[in-house]
Amino acid sequence: MTFSSAAEFATLVRGAPAFDEAAAAAARARDVTLTKPPGALGRLEELAIWYAGWRGAPLGALERPQVAIFAGNHGITARGVSAFPAEVTAQMVENFRHGGAAINQLSRVAGAVLSVEALELDRPVADFTEGPAMSEPELVAALRAGWEAVDPASDLLVTGEMGIGNTTSAAALAAALWGGDAEGWVGRGTGVDDAGLTRKAAVVRAGLAANPGAPGDPLEALRCLGGREVAAMTGAMARARAQRIPVLLDGFISCAAASVLARLAPGGLDHCLAAHVSAEAGHARLLERLGKPPLLALGLRLGEGSGAALAIGIVRAALACHSGMASFAEAGVSGA
Amino acid sequence: MTFSSAAEFATLVRGAPAFDEAAAAAARARDVTLTKPPGALGRLEELAIWYAGWRGAPLGALERPQVAIFAGNHGITARGVSAFPAEVTAQMVENFRHGGAAINQLSRVAGAVLSVEALELDRPVADFTEGPAMSEPELVAALRAGWEAVDPASDLLVTGEMGIGNTTSAAALAAALWGGDAEGWVGRGTGVDDAGLTRKAAVVRAGLAANPGAPGDPLEALRCLGGREVAAMTGAMARARAQRIPVLLDGFISCAAASVLARLAPGGLDHCLAAHVSAEAGHARLLERLGKPPLLALGLRLGEGSGAALAIGIVRAALACHSGMASFAEAGVSGA
Repeated sequence: MTFSSAAEFATLVRGAPAFDEAAAAAARARDVTLTKPPGALGRLEELAIWYAGWRGAPLGALERPQVAIFAGNHGITARGVSAFPAEVTAQMVENFRHGGAAINQLSRVAGAVLSVEALELDRPVADFTEGPAMSEPELVAALRAGWEAVDPASDLLVTGEMGIGNTTSAAALAAALWGGDAEGWVGRGTGVDDAGLTRKAAVVRAGLAANPGAPGDPLEALRCLGGREVAAMTGAMARARAQRIPVLLDGFISCAAASVLARLAPGGLDHCLAAHVSAEAGHARLLERLGKPPLLALGLRLGEGSGAALAIGIVRAALACHSGMASFAEAGVSGA
Repeated sequence: MTFSSAAEFATLVRGAPAFDEAAAAAARARDVTLTKPPGALGRLEELAIWYAGWRGAPLGALERPQVAIFAGNHGITARGVSAFPAEVTAQMVENFRHGGAAINQLSRVAGAVLSVEALELDRPVADFTEGPAMSEPELVAALRAGWEAVDPASDLLVTGEMGIGNTTSAAALAAALWGGDAEGWVGRGTGVDDAGLTRKAAVVRAGLAANPGAPGDPLEALRCLGGREVAAMTGAMARARAQRIPVLLDGFISCAAASVLARLAPGGLDHCLAAHVSAEAGHARLLERLGKPPLLALGLRLGEGSGAALAIGIVRAALACHSGMASFAEAGVSGA
C-alpha cells in the first residue's frame, strides 16, 4: 500500500480503516465491572475505550510507542518570522541525534522509540509569499517520508517537528483550511516580539494572496503553504490510521498537519487525540476546530512532539488500569 | 524527631525546613542554558525548580517515589452520605493488598512504591454530628501513623485515601478551615444522587454546629471533623516536609488534609503541589483557597491517590529534561 500522487494519497485517506465498534463495546463492558465507581477514572476511561476501538482489541498495553520527528526548512525565514536563525533547524537535528534535546529525555521517560528524519534541510521549501512552497513531486516525497517513517509494529504514534519558521507556515495552512484572519492564527512561536508578530501576520496574508487555490483543497493548501516536515507529519498520521495505530497530536504545527486529514475525509482524524494545548496562541483555536479537547495544559510551546510524548504516560496509565484492575466480583467488593 | 500531642505536632510543622533558595537559583540558572526557547517547557520548568528547592539540590531524578494510602471508617456513614456501604473500605484495602485497584496499576506504571495502612477499620471514628470524631489521643495516633508511614528515603510523596464517607468529612473540615456554606463544599463523592447531596450538606451543617471549637484551630478542626485516614495524610505531608520530600496532592480529601498544614503555618504547604483537579465539586474551590493551580484536569474522582500518582510521570519528565538536556553551548546551537 503506497501512493505516487496527491490524488492517490487522498484516496488512501478516504478508504482508511474505521473504529472497531465491537472492540470498543467490549472495553466499555469491562470498564463498568472494575473496582471503582462508574466514571471515576474520568478521561482515563475514555482513553482506554478509544485505544481499544482503534487497535481492534478490548485489552491493551503500550509496548512500542514511537515518537517520529521530522525537520524541514522554510523560505519565509528570510522575512524575519522567527526569533532564531534558520541554521538552528540543522543544529537541533544534531542535538536530537546526540540525545541532548527535550524530546530525547521525554521519549526515554515515556519508553518510546525516537526516530528523526531531516528532510532536505539544505533545500528549504520556497517562500510561499511568492507562490507554492512545494511542487507536487516535492509534496508527495514529503508525505511519503512521513508514511515510511512509521514503524508498522508501533502501538502508539507521536509526531513532532523542528523547523525554524514553521509556526508561520502552520498559521497560513490553518487559515487556508479553516478560514479566519491571519492575526487569529499567528503566535509568538519560539519568542518573537510584537513587531515579529505583525510580520508573521503579513507573511500569512501574502501567502494566502499568492496561493488562491489553497483554501479549496486540503492537499493543495499543504503543498502551497506547508513545509516538508509538516507534510511528513500528515503522511505519518495517515499511515498510522492505515495500520490502526492511535496517534497523540502535539502542538500547533502538528495540529495544522492533522487538519489536512480532518478536511480530506469525515472522521479522517478520529484515530488521533489531542495530547495537550500549547501556549502558542492559535493552538487552542485549532483544537476547537478539530473538536478535540486536550489531555494536558502545561504551557508548553516547544514542538518536537514534546507535549504528546509527555501524554504517552497518561495513555499507558489508562491502559494499565483498564487491563490490570480487578472486577467487583473478582475482588469481593460490594457494589453501590 | 516525633511528637506526642497535637501541640507538639503544631510546633514541628511551624519549625519545618524552608525552601532552599540557592538550589532553586542554581536550577533556574541551568534552565536558561538548555536547548529550548526560554520558558518553552512551561510548567515542567516550574516543576524542576520547585523540586530542586525542596530537595536542596539543583539536579534531580526520581528514583524512589512513594504512594502512601491510608484507610479509615466514619461514624457518619450511618446517615446515608455515601453511595457505597461502609464495608467497602475494608474490601478495597484487601483489593489494594492483592494488586487489583486502580492505584496498584498507577503506582506500578509510575515506578512508585505503594504502602497501605488500614487504620482501625473495625472502630470507625465517632459520628461528628454528635460531637468530636476523635479524642486527642486518637488524633495523635492517626497523625503518627501517617508520619511513620513515610519512607525517609523517598524522593517524592503521594498520599491517598480510602474511606467510605470521607468526602463528607473532608467537606466539613474544609468548611471549618476556610469558611463558606456546607453546600459549597459537598459533592457527589462516589456517586450520590440529589437527595444524598442534600443529606451530606445537612450532616456537614450538623457537624459544624456540634463542634463549635473546630473553626478556630486547624488541629482541633481535624480532630472534630476528620477521620483517621485524613489525619494520617496530614501527618505524612508534615513528615515529608521535615525530610525535604516534595509532595503531590491528590483530590478533595487529600487537599482537605493538606489544608490543616496550610492553616497551621504560613508556607506550611509550600512543599506540596496540586497534581490534579478532580470532578468532586469542592476540589477546585479548595485548590483556589490553597493557591495551587493543578497540573492535570482529567475528570478523575476516585481518591486512592490516583490523580497524584498519574502526575508522578510529569514530575519525572520535568526532572529528566532539566537534568538531561544539553546546553546551547554543549550542543553548538545558535541562540535567539
